[in-house]
Amino acid sequence: MKKIVTVSGGTGGYTILSGLKNIKGISITALVSMADSGGSAGALQDELGVLPAGDVRQCLVALSEHTDVVRKLINYRFSEGPFSGHSFGNIFLAALEKVTGDFVAGVEIASEILKVKGKVVPITKDRAELVVKLTNGQIVDGEDKIDHTNIQKSPIEEISYKNGVKLNDHARVAIEEADYIVLGPGDFYTSIIPNLIVVGFKEALAKSKAKIILPINLTNKPGHTMYWSVGDYVDLVEDYLERTIDLILVNNKSPLKKQMKYYKEYYKLDNFDGIIVKDDLNDNRIIRLSLLSHLIPPPVEGDKIQNTRSFIRHDSKKLAIAIKKIIKK
Amino acid sequence: MKKIVTVSGGTGGYTILSGLKNIKGISITALVSMADSGGSAGALQDELGVLPAGDVRQCLVALSEHTDVVRKLINYRFSEGPFSGHSFGNIFLAALEKVTGDFVAGVEIASEILKVKGKVVPITKDRAELVVKLTNGQIVDGEDKIDHTNIQKSPIEEISYKNGVKLNDHARVAIEEADYIVLGPGDFYTSIIPNLIVVGFKEALAKSKAKIILPINLTNKPGHTMYWSVGDYVDLVEDYLERTIDLILVNNKSPLKKQMKYYKEYYKLDNFDGIIVKDDLNDNRIIRLSLLSHLIPPPVEGDKIQNTRSFIRHDSKKLAIAIKKIIKK
Repeated sequence: MKKIVTVSGGTGGYTILSGLKNIKGISITALVSMADSGGSAGALQDELGVLPAGDVRQCLVALSEHTDVVRKLINYRFSEGPFSGHSFGNIFLAALEKVTGDFVAGVEIASEILKVKGKVVPITKDRAELVVKLTNGQIVDGEDKIDHTNIQKSPIEEISYKNGVKLNDHARVAIEEADYIVLGPGDFYTSIIPNLIVVGFKEALAKSKAKIILPINLTNKPGHTMYWSVGDYVDLVEDYLERTIDLILVNNKSPLKKQMKYYKEYYKLDNFDGIIVKDDLNDNRIIRLSLLSHLIPPPVEGDKIQNTRSFIRHDSKKLAIAIKKIIKK
Repeated sequence: MKKIVTVSGGTGGYTILSGLKNIKGISITALVSMADSGGSAGALQDELGVLPAGDVRQCLVALSEHTDVVRKLINYRFSEGPFSGHSFGNIFLAALEKVTGDFVAGVEIASEILKVKGKVVPITKDRAELVVKLTNGQIVDGEDKIDHTNIQKSPIEEISYKNGVKLNDHARVAIEEADYIVLGPGDFYTSIIPNLIVVGFKEALAKSKAKIILPINLTNKPGHTMYWSVGDYVDLVEDYLERTIDLILVNNKSPLKKQMKYYKEYYKLDNFDGIIVKDDLNDNRIIRLSLLSHLIPPPVEGDKIQNTRSFIRHDSKKLAIAIKKIIKK
């Protein structure tokens, strides 16, 4: 049985895992970023001293084989009363961390309750506070703030954690034993890189015989990666990993006009220049396929973020089929 | 397979169901009072418009065959942050009611998640606001207030709901099809009677061939039932039911001095007069047994109520063995 490890944040993790769940005969371990400092998860980190559960929650829901109503429950966000704005899944994981005294143990119990296929493993047990330093001297503190700041005005000098954030042992073992490791998709600086810079990640990867698959994002993020090409993503990831990527998945289908319109409206853009990732690499590691979803996701009650940010995204099934082909070769 | 229906509130329900769970070859349906207006459950009823989940939660935990840590999770009470004072189980049931749009459907899903043996059925789907009228003209509004008021200063003229509270259909069917119905144990006016006065309860019971078992409370409640005897409980229940009780379970063991001391301290009593229920009935329906627990329950983190009120209570096992003997005859 092939061992697949995914490395992601929340929404990207949800997309890829939803697809991988349906591939038979593979074992899945989802390593999940813990840098999330926004929204309900961030608030609970501050108020209850628990680790931020938002990204883990999305991965649990993606891999859950429980009924639809249970998966809906985990994503349910209260819109009134004392819990207003909090998703039930975050409260669930907070209570489990309190009861077990350990976030990682809590996630294991949550996985059992939710009948999760495979494993969901937080990349670290440490409090992970992300900081970006730009060469112009600007410092942006916290994942949520980084997410909403233009960090392209001047080159990035360093992206790091305030304190040394160490790789969780379970994550280390999963990386070392993996056959394939899929990095992303997801926001580059707030979902992908936060995993790669965890102390011990590179070292575990160096010991692993796994092939690394990099699904390139469909779009560049305004203020973060505008005008980037496939080559830019590959180069930068290889710099962080100090290792070569084995396979690169590149989408070759255009988004619908309606999707572009929503995207522009959300990011308040005048045009679409620099958004689509330029396919500039002539490289036999690249696999070009239609990977884009033409589905406009239905609104999720009370979830503003979910309803606005995912207008152009990967199709879980297409992504899974691409990965399946690679694995079964 | 014998069909056992229990009719209870929270703590009493927990006690009897914890014992019954381990009897093989019976089906259990727990009908649960919905009059609870205090604490976390009452607050959520006011703030989220959901039904009060506290008593249902305790019955779910009692019948859950999931791991200990999951049962601990459901009873976990937050002691800080935005959820301070709320038990996780109440939040869980509130979210399920929101997601399904129906408290009873939510309890069914909770039962599935928690691997509940048997069924937990709220006695009603209606908002149940209890009112006590005394013959001296005093009116006490709400289960929580009734619980903490001396309603023995003058005889009770009427105990009723503000609006007509109707029996849930699932509860009606369970009563009609039961082989045995166990009423209690539990606080007489706030856990037992609130079930019996639901519109349709008496009528369902009239159609049922079930034998009715009444475990008499071990102690009288200060301000509610002080100086009552076994005969008083039996007479009053029969008045409400308009039917004869078939079997009466009476404890014949004294509480420990330590238990009496704690009890006196909690209720600020000078002595123990009128607390122990007088065994005054000469009746062949009575079964006299040692039913009292000599266990002082360990403290539950953050749960003041749990930690103070249950100093003299039934032993789940002894109660279950007594009922098992009746059933297997």
